[in-house]
Amino acid sequence: MSKLLIVGTVAFDAIETPFGSTDKILGGAATYISLAASYCDVTSGIVSVVGGDFPKEFFKELNQKNIDTSGIEIIEDGKTFYWHGKYHNDLNKRDTLTTQLNVLADFKPKVPKKFQDSEFLMLGNLHPSVQMEVIRQIPKRPKLVALDTMNYWMDNTWDELMEVVAKVDIITINDEEARQMSGEHSLVKAAQKIHKMGPQYVVIKKGENGALLFNNGDAFFAPALPLEEVFDPTGAGDTFAGGFIGHMADARDISFDSMKRAVIAGSNLASFCVEKFGTERMLNLTKEEIVNRLYQFKQLTQFDIELR
Amino acid sequence: MSKLLIVGTVAFDAIETPFGSTDKILGGAATYISLAASYCDVTSGIVSVVGGDFPKEFFKELNQKNIDTSGIEIIEDGKTFYWHGKYHNDLNKRDTLTTQLNVLADFKPKVPKKFQDSEFLMLGNLHPSVQMEVIRQIPKRPKLVALDTMNYWMDNTWDELMEVVAKVDIITINDEEARQMSGEHSLVKAAQKIHKMGPQYVVIKKGENGALLFNNGDAFFAPALPLEEVFDPTGAGDTFAGGFIGHMADARDISFDSMKRAVIAGSNLASFCVEKFGTERMLNLTKEEIVNRLYQFKQLTQFDIELR
Repeated sequence: MSKLLIVGTVAFDAIETPFGSTDKILGGAATYISLAASYCDVTSGIVSVVGGDFPKEFFKELNQKNIDTSGIEIIEDGKTFYWHGKYHNDLNKRDTLTTQLNVLADFKPKVPKKFQDSEFLMLGNLHPSVQMEVIRQIPKRPKLVALDTMNYWMDNTWDELMEVVAKVDIITINDEEARQMSGEHSLVKAAQKIHKMGPQYVVIKKGENGALLFNNGDAFFAPALPLEEVFDPTGAGDTFAGGFIGHMADARDISFDSMKRAVIAGSNLASFCVEKFGTERMLNLTKEEIVNRLYQFKQLTQFDIELR
Repeated sequence: MSKLLIVGTVAFDAIETPFGSTDKILGGAATYISLAASYCDVTSGIVSVVGGDFPKEFFKELNQKNIDTSGIEIIEDGKTFYWHGKYHNDLNKRDTLTTQLNVLADFKPKVPKKFQDSEFLMLGNLHPSVQMEVIRQIPKRPKLVALDTMNYWMDNTWDELMEVVAKVDIITINDEEARQMSGEHSLVKAAQKIHKMGPQYVVIKKGENGALLFNNGDAFFAPALPLEEVFDPTGAGDTFAGGFIGHMADARDISFDSMKRAVIAGSNLASFCVEKFGTERMLNLTKEEIVNRLYQFKQLTQFDIELR
């Protein structure tokens, strides 16, 4: 079984949507990524940091999904990273009300010995110098390194970001971030420019408008599943990334066709994530639900047309 | 060969985009619809009205594409419908600077005798009572009636619109219009409500974010082809509709699978339309270009995933 190492935040989230609000539930990029990947046949572990206030039962929930949490450092006298956000009525936009970095401010990642030979590495959204440090701690280059980032790092740590972007095979970012990063409005041109920064594969996430995968001349598109109700979009992008890298690690096949399937697998898992608050849905999925929805994806996208 | 009757505007458009501007070029819903359908094996005719200022060479351009223009009434002492619009920098929004209804204000459509037995009817965006009048002039109900409309008619002629919507098989509208028409934000729920107003099939156009086809429980999605450059989006929605109905009329197969192919055919043609100003690209397409791009659509969307 492939080893998948995930670096990213493990956090408390407080979320407000038009449908309700929560206070300090389990969240963070590494959490969503690892939960999504747990539905693939992989051995995955997280590198992150939390404070003494982080409930032990949250570790248990991850461990029950076969996620190794030994790489999550606990700073007993520190506080866990906290994010408080509020979604607009149409759920396509959100405002960040509070960000408390807490223990994340001085985070020095330490990759556990048993994950230093990971063949698949997912660098979740974090300070690019933390992402870089994790790359440095893996002596043999993994088969596949994927990176997620956001506009905040483009605004504040461009040089460090470019350094890590140059080292990865795949980048996953949203459409606005791709435009900002490249200075191009056309996503085709944006992907071309981002290729030149390093990543051979560029995945552009468009939320409810699906995701595009670019590999130089080739492109693949996966829609988001049209849902009757989206309850909470928090973590959907990370769930997509986790499903994507989990599928790649499971398949051990780095072809473009395999990557197409991985984009579908990620979109599929993300469609569940948004059905409930926070991680709730991702903690309680069945294989049957996943396969049934993959069938829906096929119905939604596959057609048979004569090329004449 | 199936007969396809198209009712809609034949107009002068003046267009401003970030890339340039035009003055009074050939435009109008029926123009784009009929040009798109001309790439299918159908006998198509337009019902519309123009003024004495409408150049005869524009008729010739349509006739050269085997489009019957005998149902376009010419009001010699009137002026042709004129639209002047300006696109925002990202081309996703536009402002209407001028709308001069001119001869369209008192338009009484007359379906030519040879098109009164049309099996396929496309009601392009127009006053719903004009659309209704065309339905009345076709004694035997067509195999398939499709309707396109816009928010203007929802705001100003709701009752007349509901009357014609109840009579059609397919409605094509954009996402914001679907939301306005149904009062639902979720497009799945919007389609459910619109089904209840009459149309068995609901096509929701999302511009650069593709198109969704709903038929009660079933859904199909076609992306827009990711393009390096979009030059002028004018007519893309009508081109989509024309490619869609043209494909249905050509195939003479009203199954959902056939409709999926029609959505792809429409998206394919719309991807050409936006490459040049106005109708320019739609007047000069080759079969080979169309087939090559269909192949790109397959590459973009088709995947092979094991359902396990």
